[in-house]
Amino acid sequence: MIAGAALFDVFGTLVDWRRGVVEALAAIFVEYRISADPAALADAWRAAYEPSMAPIREGRRAYVALDVLHRENLDRVLAAEGLAGRLPGSVLDDLARCWERLPAWEDTAPGLAAIRALMPVAPCSNGSIGLMLRLARHAGLGWDAILGAEIARNYKPASEVYRVSCAALRLPPEDVLMVAAHNGDLAAAQAQGLRTAFVPRPLEHGPGGAAELVPEGDWDLVAPDLRTLAGLLWTRVAPTG
Amino acid sequence: MIAGAALFDVFGTLVDWRRGVVEALAAIFVEYRISADPAALADAWRAAYEPSMAPIREGRRAYVALDVLHRENLDRVLAAEGLAGRLPGSVLDDLARCWERLPAWEDTAPGLAAIRALMPVAPCSNGSIGLMLRLARHAGLGWDAILGAEIARNYKPASEVYRVSCAALRLPPEDVLMVAAHNGDLAAAQAQGLRTAFVPRPLEHGPGGAAELVPEGDWDLVAPDLRTLAGLLWTRVAPTG
Repeated sequence: MIAGAALFDVFGTLVDWRRGVVEALAAIFVEYRISADPAALADAWRAAYEPSMAPIREGRRAYVALDVLHRENLDRVLAAEGLAGRLPGSVLDDLARCWERLPAWEDTAPGLAAIRALMPVAPCSNGSIGLMLRLARHAGLGWDAILGAEIARNYKPASEVYRVSCAALRLPPEDVLMVAAHNGDLAAAQAQGLRTAFVPRPLEHGPGGAAELVPEGDWDLVAPDLRTLAGLLWTRVAPTG
Repeated sequence: MIAGAALFDVFGTLVDWRRGVVEALAAIFVEYRISADPAALADAWRAAYEPSMAPIREGRRAYVALDVLHRENLDRVLAAEGLAGRLPGSVLDDLARCWERLPAWEDTAPGLAAIRALMPVAPCSNGSIGLMLRLARHAGLGWDAILGAEIARNYKPASEVYRVSCAALRLPPEDVLMVAAHNGDLAAAQAQGLRTAFVPRPLEHGPGGAAELVPEGDWDLVAPDLRTLAGLLWTRVAPTG
């Protein structure tokens, strides 16, 4: 299986969103003397993500960037914790942008660079172009383009996000590899004809959290991390004598 | 003038499209024993570019990528030279993709890298995402994202190409610098509120060709090449105390 390009899920697959968000919340809570559990808030914020995209996927709301949804959801989860009005608007605006400053898993940057030496790489994330751009500069990720939700103006797992991303690469879906830590993302990509690689991230939801550990579909490749995935791809590309 | 990001015209401004296209045509003409002037053909091919975008800008044709227009225009200019049917379709398909393999001006890659160390950089070209991606890998250009015609689904100088590109950066136009060797491109960008930098390319149309040598508007910056532009930007960003 040799692909002409590789697309990557980002939140969870390449970056540890939970640690980044927990640390951002914790810093603000200390500064503003708020006694709340940042981990619980981070989980609630992330839990609000799926339902907030639903109206857009279902055509009941025009596309707005994930940055806008993150900001709206932050207000909502703080209010649910009785924390509405405890933080200035400018602090909330900055806090909502903590998704631009998430830490990468340790294997992400070198693994991605090794794959990029073989083929073009791009995120196929629900994050906006601006968010992906800033996160890439922060986390040291090198991309050839930024594809995904914003160019399709819809959210994964809507089929057009995968299709528009392949079309932007000017490659047929069967020449494009989708890499994700989430079985549902890979299933949606496979349904559009893409190749698939599963890279589980046991710590996505924190120690003891409900990460997806097991491949639940017939994925083309399974690897424990991005360096190993790069090695698998290199082996299949390099002449074997 | 400090910008939050810089957008770049590509054909002419960053890469020497004429030399690249002339060399591609010359190689094919030798191989197929065609006696025609590759430079004249290259100029005719490029001249077909503007009129082929007009129906899309005017809403009479749905957006198609520049790759498609290049392929159509190649057929047209070969036919006009009495060369229709002289080359197999697969050769024409590959020849039409010579725009993915153009040489950069010598200062482009280092100048762009120096600017990228200061701020995010992206092409705002009429080239498609796939074309820009392959050209960047060929010419060693490092981008943070690929913006421009394809995400706006229209062609410069249509105003939405600049506006959609700024929106994708999540920056107001006054925080975005447009860099181009063409006064008309800068005028259209300035009309949308962007900052402007003029970098003339005297050899864009070959020795003695009709390149734009003189700034014809009130541009924020004028520099003879990209290294110098990077220096100007660094000077304005670095503390001078």
